[in-house]
Amino acid sequence: MSRLDSFIGRVTAQRDCLNELARRLKGRAGPILELGLGNGRTYDHLRSLFPDNPIYVFDRELAAHPDCIPPAECALLGDFRDTLPAALARIGARAILAHGDFGSGNAARTAELAAFMGPALDPLLEAGAFVCSDQPMTVARWQPVAPPPTVEPGRYFLWRVGEVP
Amino acid sequence: MSRLDSFIGRVTAQRDCLNELARRLKGRAGPILELGLGNGRTYDHLRSLFPDNPIYVFDRELAAHPDCIPPAECALLGDFRDTLPAALARIGARAILAHGDFGSGNAARTAELAAFMGPALDPLLEAGAFVCSDQPMTVARWQPVAPPPTVEPGRYFLWRVGEVP
Repeated sequence: MSRLDSFIGRVTAQRDCLNELARRLKGRAGPILELGLGNGRTYDHLRSLFPDNPIYVFDRELAAHPDCIPPAECALLGDFRDTLPAALARIGARAILAHGDFGSGNAARTAELAAFMGPALDPLLEAGAFVCSDQPMTVARWQPVAPPPTVEPGRYFLWRVGEVP
Repeated sequence: MSRLDSFIGRVTAQRDCLNELARRLKGRAGPILELGLGNGRTYDHLRSLFPDNPIYVFDRELAAHPDCIPPAECALLGDFRDTLPAALARIGARAILAHGDFGSGNAARTAELAAFMGPALDPLLEAGAFVCSDQPMTVARWQPVAPPPTVEPGRYFLWRVGEVP
């Protein structure tokens, strides 16, 4: 499988998972968290799926397409390790969905980031929220949810967040 | 349609078109031209489809994933306007396939580049070669070929190169 095939598998899985979560979360109020804005393609997709929910974006800097720049009050810029712990105070409400596509070419660094990300994200999420990521994460109150059947096993991961323990 | 949907349509079309051309060109010797290396995903796909053909890559600079860097003798670095006119002397044979995914967010600049690209590429191609691009181009001896049925109309373009007029 070429890197192009693998990439198509990943972005298609991402889209199919987010579309599925949009069906499950239809009509539910509350913020959405996008971890990594990048060029803004996924942010644009989230905007189209959740037109009535505020979408908070976390990234080191704003480098997105000009049409996909979030409003300043929804951009939390800096290292995830600095912005995530302070985010709940800034956002003022727990989120109904968090999406993180943060795998990089460096497997060790990606695993380290995933180990940080789960526990750092968890306090930002309300019970019944969903998490969607290209990386496996383990958090006690997150229950794995099967991705849609179009998604190859291991390509993308979904969880439903349980009650505060 | 979100930018994510549109992007998935483009990369899937690219892959399906290249796979189709690999079937049509099966067993044929000769160089392949990749216009724009980028992160090297498409280069990796071309390598997997055409393991016995040399692939010459044109780009401003090498910024690809470490696994997708072409051999130095196959990298023609610099502005297309400088590298394409001198390429035939460097490569030493006409190509059987040229792929160019060079659209950018700037529509005027993309159209200008496409207007340059067709005539600049044409002398590098042998009769019976194919051209595959995300941009429409018009060259007298290039006959449009219908993309595979999975490709949405206008998403990707194929041509078969005729005899030298």
